[in-house]
Amino acid sequence: MELLKNRILKDAIVIGDSIVKVDSFLNHQLDIELFNEMGKEFKKRFSDENISRILTVEASGIAVACIAAQYFSVPVVFAKKYEALNLDSDTYQSEVYSFTKQKSYNIRVSKKYISPEDNVLIIDDFLANGKAASGLVDIVRQAGARVAGVGIVIEKGFQKGREALMQKGVRIESLAVIKSMKEGIIIFE
Amino acid sequence: MELLKNRILKDAIVIGDSIVKVDSFLNHQLDIELFNEMGKEFKKRFSDENISRILTVEASGIAVACIAAQYFSVPVVFAKKYEALNLDSDTYQSEVYSFTKQKSYNIRVSKKYISPEDNVLIIDDFLANGKAASGLVDIVRQAGARVAGVGIVIEKGFQKGREALMQKGVRIESLAVIKSMKEGIIIFE
Repeated sequence: MELLKNRILKDAIVIGDSIVKVDSFLNHQLDIELFNEMGKEFKKRFSDENISRILTVEASGIAVACIAAQYFSVPVVFAKKYEALNLDSDTYQSEVYSFTKQKSYNIRVSKKYISPEDNVLIIDDFLANGKAASGLVDIVRQAGARVAGVGIVIEKGFQKGREALMQKGVRIESLAVIKSMKEGIIIFE
Repeated sequence: MELLKNRILKDAIVIGDSIVKVDSFLNHQLDIELFNEMGKEFKKRFSDENISRILTVEASGIAVACIAAQYFSVPVVFAKKYEALNLDSDTYQSEVYSFTKQKSYNIRVSKKYISPEDNVLIIDDFLANGKAASGLVDIVRQAGARVAGVGIVIEKGFQKGREALMQKGVRIESLAVIKSMKEGIIIFE
């Protein structure tokens, strides 16, 4: 997606060889116009699928998922990552390892909000090692529902996320895939 | 807002005299069509204000803020509630006490994303004791910006949030104000 790639080149801050900060438009300040273009692009790429539900994980996935959901006319469900007193006790859950935090946490979705008839599009802002997305795939499958695919805004192509998801037989559509970012220069695939 | 009130009456689960669970449409599964109607209503109520930015706090505020932002054509900024490695060190912050968790936490916004020229609409899903909203007001004022008002989806009118915000001289627009919910019956103001 050229619009997104150009925005990344213009505004992203590269730290070291593997961290790309996009908090000016994607995960702290949110450029809703850009999000709408991303939503249209997800709809285009998954136009062959009859999506019934979009699943994401808090927090920064929520914004992307909600704007995209308008183009699919479906509800969004977001997996809870943190303790939530108001969450049902009857949940699907999956353990996710965070490399940045070097610890595992559980993501959880109430059993009420995914059913076996669902064809679920998973959406997230980043794909790096694929741990969060894999956890979401597990949750959809625990529910007996189908994973239509995973839609990602920025994929770090030099990490293992795509491989991990492909091993699960999941289709991946990333709007921008970064091949490398050595010496502060972002190269897309 | 009648549509919202009817939805609350239809789908909310009341627990005790003070907890209302609306995770089937507002903060776990998200009814994006309803969110669009809420966004239009916020725009109508704040049509006399020239809003430049919407501020919310993760996680469930993000969805409401993003859909509403489309009607104001402005970016959204969400305050970070949890540790985030990619957050700038140079932030505005405010300590927020959580009654449900019985502890305090900091909410933080990078100084880059609110400037003194801003006229900020604060949006959140719930107003109870007003601690989170007050923290957001503090952050806007630390930045030297103006608080245009606070837009709330569901206000618990029997708690202290409105009073706390009014003491700060802040305008509040709530789409549904619950007066009481004794014995499982929700009464709106």
